Amino acid sequence: MSNVHAVILAGGAGTRFWPASRRQLPKQLLPLAGRADETLIGATVRRIEPLVPAERTWISTAARLVEATAAALPQLSRSNFLAEPVARNTAPCIGLAGATIGRFDPDAVVAVLPSDHFIADEPGFRHVLARAVQIAEEGWLVTIGVVPTRPETGYGYIELGDAIAHQAHAVRRFVEKPARQLAETFVAGGRHLWNAGMFFFRVSVMRAAIAKHMPDLARGLAAIDAAALRGEEARVLAEVFPTLPSISIDRGVMEKADRIAVVPGSFGWTDVGSWQVTWEMSEHDADGNALPAESVAIDARNNLVRDLTRGQARKRWALVGVNDLVIVETEDAVLVIPRERAQDVRLVVDALAARGDIDRL
Amino acid sequence: MSNVHAVILAGGAGTRFWPASRRQLPKQLLPLAGRADETLIGATVRRIEPLVPAERTWISTAARLVEATAAALPQLSRSNFLAEPVARNTAPCIGLAGATIGRFDPDAVVAVLPSDHFIADEPGFRHVLARAVQIAEEGWLVTIGVVPTRPETGYGYIELGDAIAHQAHAVRRFVEKPARQLAETFVAGGRHLWNAGMFFFRVSVMRAAIAKHMPDLARGLAAIDAAALRGEEARVLAEVFPTLPSISIDRGVMEKADRIAVVPGSFGWTDVGSWQVTWEMSEHDADGNALPAESVAIDARNNLVRDLTRGQARKRWALVGVNDLVIVETEDAVLVIPRERAQDVRLVVDALAARGDIDRL
Repeated sequence: MSNVHAVILAGGAGTRFWPASRRQLPKQLLPLAGRADETLIGATVRRIEPLVPAERTWISTAARLVEATAAALPQLSRSNFLAEPVARNTAPCIGLAGATIGRFDPDAVVAVLPSDHFIADEPGFRHVLARAVQIAEEGWLVTIGVVPTRPETGYGYIELGDAIAHQAHAVRRFVEKPARQLAETFVAGGRHLWNAGMFFFRVSVMRAAIAKHMPDLARGLAAIDAAALRGEEARVLAEVFPTLPSISIDRGVMEKADRIAVVPGSFGWTDVGSWQVTWEMSEHDADGNALPAESVAIDARNNLVRDLTRGQARKRWALVGVNDLVIVETEDAVLVIPRERAQDVRLVVDALAARGDIDRL
Repeated sequence: MSNVHAVILAGGAGTRFWPASRRQLPKQLLPLAGRADETLIGATVRRIEPLVPAERTWISTAARLVEATAAALPQLSRSNFLAEPVARNTAPCIGLAGATIGRFDPDAVVAVLPSDHFIADEPGFRHVLARAVQIAEEGWLVTIGVVPTRPETGYGYIELGDAIAHQAHAVRRFVEKPARQLAETFVAGGRHLWNAGMFFFRVSVMRAAIAKHMPDLARGLAAIDAAALRGEEARVLAEVFPTLPSISIDRGVMEKADRIAVVPGSFGWTDVGSWQVTWEMSEHDADGNALPAESVAIDARNNLVRDLTRGQARKRWALVGVNDLVIVETEDAVLVIPRERAQDVRLVVDALAARGDIDRL
């Protein structure tokens, strides 16, 4: 049996959770769901540990984020951090990780996992992951499809094809974010799953698929690979990586390749996409409020207050007559926004960027 | 001509401006209007100084507030602070101040002024005050009536009687807080003024009026007066003051006495009664927001944010899609309330009191 390696994708711009998230502190480095003292990336590494030990867990992140990410994952060796000199989307990133792992372990199976998702049922998730690995060993490019629970228009969908072994299916088609009506059809029809951005493959199989469908990327990766064998990886990576095509692995490889499989799963997955999701996943009082301890709420419903300041004396929050608000306070900024507009926090980040307020980005 | 003394009424429970105001820090000790670095009581003393020098300015306050109030008024001698052992409303308070001043200066005219109001037109105010003093010298009990600019139901009104000298009128009647419709009639009719809680009298005239209409109070004051001449004022005050009738000077004396005059005035007066008033009196941006410097406001209108924390780095406030909110932050508390419910901040204070959260009261 092959060794399983994990590649955790940990880039990210840090805009959707402003003011908690920043350019230097994207959401995977924050405790936004689950345990109050565990970052999303920390949970990601911990929950696969029974299947993938730390020495085979690789972190793909931006050069500027290596320090902070390493601090969040003290159990990992610094040599397991793969720093991209610039962001080039997931195809170059996954291709590079596959090539790097392949040099050490040519028979490896790689599990690519996002670093910023929350999973409620961890044993259930590991069960699905083990099956995805098994199918990847047999030469398939594999993804996990989450059984949809609502007609979400913010996700891509995967249409099931014929059943293959291990309760998996061939993928018939990847579908971009659908309109509402189409999404409703998908949920009702039972043949579409959410694309959760998880991929499983033998390094040899991915290398061959890239060679076939993304020859430019294959050439670049070959150059980096050759340089690594000469001990010149750093220099050539910095030269070559920025020239690679910026495209997602879905678009560049998965949608075009043969033998693509999907393993359906239901394990309480959420992508922690906005403060709205944080409210949904928080403990609420009887009025739907998720507030700091000892808050006063009078005629106030369905609000989220996150006090992320480090003060000794806990602030007393008092909400009177306000509903459906998100309020987030940090040491140097405060956000006030309706829950239903939580995605619009990017407008704040844009405004701060436009005025050059770099300390708050 | 008699000497004019001022008695500044500076008690107050400190609930309407929570979390800025506290039991130990009522609103007159805060810079809630006008200059950012001047307390309301500081402005009160400063604006009468051309007419009443510091040595004839007396501060009537609660024993527990003497220290903080003296700190806000460094120009006043400690002997000019009159500490009430308990709060007994304005009649005992004004009676005591009149008696105290009368011992030093039997011919004095006293101007009683609230400590927590804002006045935009200070020369205009002094002009009206000088006329009120003039009429008081002639033996009237005098009040100032503010020409109403809206059908306010939160104030008492004064109905004008016949004209007397110096553009003043005899008072026909004091009217308690009216219903909306009646208030509209008052504003339209032009014969009703707002009762701004300012009173002017010769100490001898007030003593006689109290003797006639509040004999219990007169007896108590006489006992304190006699004790003061024996050097036993402190002990007797502590004994007698709590037994005095708790009633306002309006109700106890002004509504019953003869020769009550009112001087009408328009000098940009406001009682700074709630955060709603603070919003009204603040500088606004084009969208009606009064926010800390460098805030980001997107689709946000008519909000007030007061950041009263002492942090070195100014917080960046970002408001998206919220309207008509009041948000006030201090070192240890944050209030979020719609402007139109600003009066309901007392519900928060009640809730904190009920749970014994005394550090935040």
